[in-house]
Amino acid sequence: MSFRSLTIKPGRLLNTIHETAQRFGAKGVWGPESTQTGVCRLSLSDYDKGVRDWFVEQTKSLGCEVKIDEIGNIFAIYPGKNNDAKPTAIGSHLDTQPTGGRYDGVLGVLSGLEVLRTIKENGFVPNYPIALINWTNEEGARFPLSIMASSVWSEQIPLEQAYKLQSVTDIDPVTVEHELKRIGYLGPVKASYKTNPIAAHFEIHIEQGPVLEDANEKIGIVIGVQAYSWFKVRVYGKAQHTGTTPLAARSDAILAASKMIIKGNELAKKHNCLFSVGVFTLKPAVVNVIPEFVEFIIDVRNVKDDGLSAILEEIKDEFPKISKESGRNLSVEFELIYTSNAVNFHSDCINCVRDSAISIVGKDKVREMISGAGHDSCATNSRVPTSMIFIPSKNGVSHNPEEYSSPEEIHTGLEVLLNAVLQYDAFRSN
Amino acid sequence: MSFRSLTIKPGRLLNTIHETAQRFGAKGVWGPESTQTGVCRLSLSDYDKGVRDWFVEQTKSLGCEVKIDEIGNIFAIYPGKNNDAKPTAIGSHLDTQPTGGRYDGVLGVLSGLEVLRTIKENGFVPNYPIALINWTNEEGARFPLSIMASSVWSEQIPLEQAYKLQSVTDIDPVTVEHELKRIGYLGPVKASYKTNPIAAHFEIHIEQGPVLEDANEKIGIVIGVQAYSWFKVRVYGKAQHTGTTPLAARSDAILAASKMIIKGNELAKKHNCLFSVGVFTLKPAVVNVIPEFVEFIIDVRNVKDDGLSAILEEIKDEFPKISKESGRNLSVEFELIYTSNAVNFHSDCINCVRDSAISIVGKDKVREMISGAGHDSCATNSRVPTSMIFIPSKNGVSHNPEEYSSPEEIHTGLEVLLNAVLQYDAFRSN
Ligand SMILES: NC(=O)NCCC(=O)O
Ligand SMILES: NC(=O)NCCC(=O)O
Repeated sequence: MSFRSLTIKPGRLLNTIHETAQRFGAKGVWGPESTQTGVCRLSLSDYDKGVRDWFVEQTKSLGCEVKIDEIGNIFAIYPGKNNDAKPTAIGSHLDTQPTGGRYDGVLGVLSGLEVLRTIKENGFVPNYPIALINWTNEEGARFPLSIMASSVWSEQIPLEQAYKLQSVTDIDPVTVEHELKRIGYLGPVKASYKTNPIAAHFEIHIEQGPVLEDANEKIGIVIGVQAYSWFKVRVYGKAQHTGTTPLAARSDAILAASKMIIKGNELAKKHNCLFSVGVFTLKPAVVNVIPEFVEFIIDVRNVKDDGLSAILEEIKDEFPKISKESGRNLSVEFELIYTSNAVNFHSDCINCVRDSAISIVGKDKVREMISGAGHDSCATNSRVPTSMIFIPSKNGVSHNPEEYSSPEEIHTGLEVLLNAVLQYDAFRSN
Repeated sequence: MSFRSLTIKPGRLLNTIHETAQRFGAKGVWGPESTQTGVCRLSLSDYDKGVRDWFVEQTKSLGCEVKIDEIGNIFAIYPGKNNDAKPTAIGSHLDTQPTGGRYDGVLGVLSGLEVLRTIKENGFVPNYPIALINWTNEEGARFPLSIMASSVWSEQIPLEQAYKLQSVTDIDPVTVEHELKRIGYLGPVKASYKTNPIAAHFEIHIEQGPVLEDANEKIGIVIGVQAYSWFKVRVYGKAQHTGTTPLAARSDAILAASKMIIKGNELAKKHNCLFSVGVFTLKPAVVNVIPEFVEFIIDVRNVKDDGLSAILEEIKDEFPKISKESGRNLSVEFELIYTSNAVNFHSDCINCVRDSAISIVGKDKVREMISGAGHDSCATNSRVPTSMIFIPSKNGVSHNPEEYSSPEEIHTGLEVLLNAVLQYDAFRSN
């Protein structure tokens, strides 16, 4: 049987997306339909536990062997003809943002599940096993380190560093290790590409930007991911009375921080980068005291590593100048949280995605593109051939409940994924 | 016996200040001595309960009748010859800032206590009773409404509004009413200048600014207080992905808020006002989502009501412009929390302070001045003759653990208070 002739059950993937959204964290109503909400399923939360348990049950019922590693990654391995060989993997993440939609990450895992269901129903046996992976804390929302557990698996981040990470969305911060234990997903398998290997990694994802939609194209063949860096900025000022301290006598930490945020945006324009501040706290946080301390986290991105370094250098030059100019008792400090270098995906996997996409939507409806967001595929690509498939995002909206891709776009994406993975399976056996 | 000949016990006031600081909330070490810390005694906290219980015990042991009103104000009434008449009052507050010092407010109440002790020890009987008042939540730090309970007493703020106020310094916000009940200070007496009247109000306070120190003067005769206004600003933007949303496509609430903070400072310079932001929160508060919502509280001050109105109008004009220029989905909203109009104290009380100060330190060492900070005396002045006495603040520092006034300055202040109050007592009986 040729893999080109498998029949996909229409609409089932979309149903699975909506059913799991409904059961595990639906939030953020944006329309009258019950499907018109986002999802808030923070990593290692109770909802995350719920969807994980469901995922394990579903994949086991398909005949998968399920392995859970020590950072909570779930590997569901569907058997092939040659079960001693490394599996070909499909992976993404089931965690979402606090203001998340129904598709970011979830689409990738559930499309993978639908690939396994389709193979099984069609009685197709792949040459090699297929691993469907749910990676832990891709979002970096609850625990501020994105692509966390795939990076532990690729040995780019030490396990201990991930374990110690503190949540930023809980009133009383908890660690990754604590939450893994609490929800029962600190597994026995070592988190390592060496001892728990895969042969390749495919991931389908919503674009999260406007490019495909604007060009009226259907599939993005993702050839790489831009570089990004997250770091903390701490501004130290002096607590003083708002009513008695002349402007000129102040060391106002929030005034200096405001200037830094504006400067960062200016530098981003100049360097053709992105600059954002999503986390910002201050002390003592009362109305009539000039803040003595401000801490914020910066997210900077550029398609090239050089471009990223250039803006980071200028920021590290400019912010201390701002702090100096803004008050005698002001100082500023930087702490790097995370850098993800620019990624170039592997031509073997890109070729499978390209062939599959062109055969399904035609060459006028595909585009080779660079991802603006980081993905677990960045981590896997450091160790094994990897590529990604994008489908259009309505208005380019993401990390927002209104994330939307149409039923047709979702179905087409699934077809492209199925064919790309099975083409790779065939290619490996040549 | 003339009130001019009473003997003050040297050093006792300072000891009382340091002993109560030590027992009830010492925090913020700034030097090697045990007295070199600030005090964090948030309104209606456990430490506030502690110092209140101590205050009630001390004043009762002097023979005071103690009344607690329904907003937690404590009136300790020391008897005079004519106990049917309204008492002459000395008042201030025992609550402090999170980054508070040892003197702001506390000096006023404990100096009043020392006045009562001195009168008693000297066997002096005033013509009229003297009320020593501890006003609840002057700081507006834990519950963001300064001069709260004196303003309820003066009927400028409805009791219900004060009761409902939510704390900003607790992880789980609680109301004023809840905390009054919890610490046992929701008293039976109606909070009203009508049914629980006083004849006049005197308050001694640290200057909280640099003017007296810079001029090498010892006593400020406070003739008024500048106007100020607190209001919330809410900026609504759109949650979007930091890695995929082009700068030009954003509605970045924190970028707009940063521009507003800078604009506010510029306008303050132009209008010769003060402008500060001490409270600032955002949502969803994760690294890779552009904030969809920012809320901050502005504190604006000017010596004239007109001056304050002028900058407020310009702010309400300029901020929406900033929001409009900064993104299609941005909007801004204002909510007034509190306005304290410019205050002119009463000439009868000012005269007593002036006479007392000049007789003690000489006319070259006094200055008539306007207070930059609000005080409970603003509320009392709306109903009864009021004035204040300032002593120097080292480096003008306040709302900071390093607040400092020397033992001599504190002793001199006490002498001026004692004589001003007893001069008023004599003046009333003429
Ligand atoms: N795809 C995605 O939103 N990943 C989160 C990591 C990032 O911020 O790029
Ligand atoms: N004196 C003092 O710090 N009062 C608090 C109210 C204000 O912010 O002015």
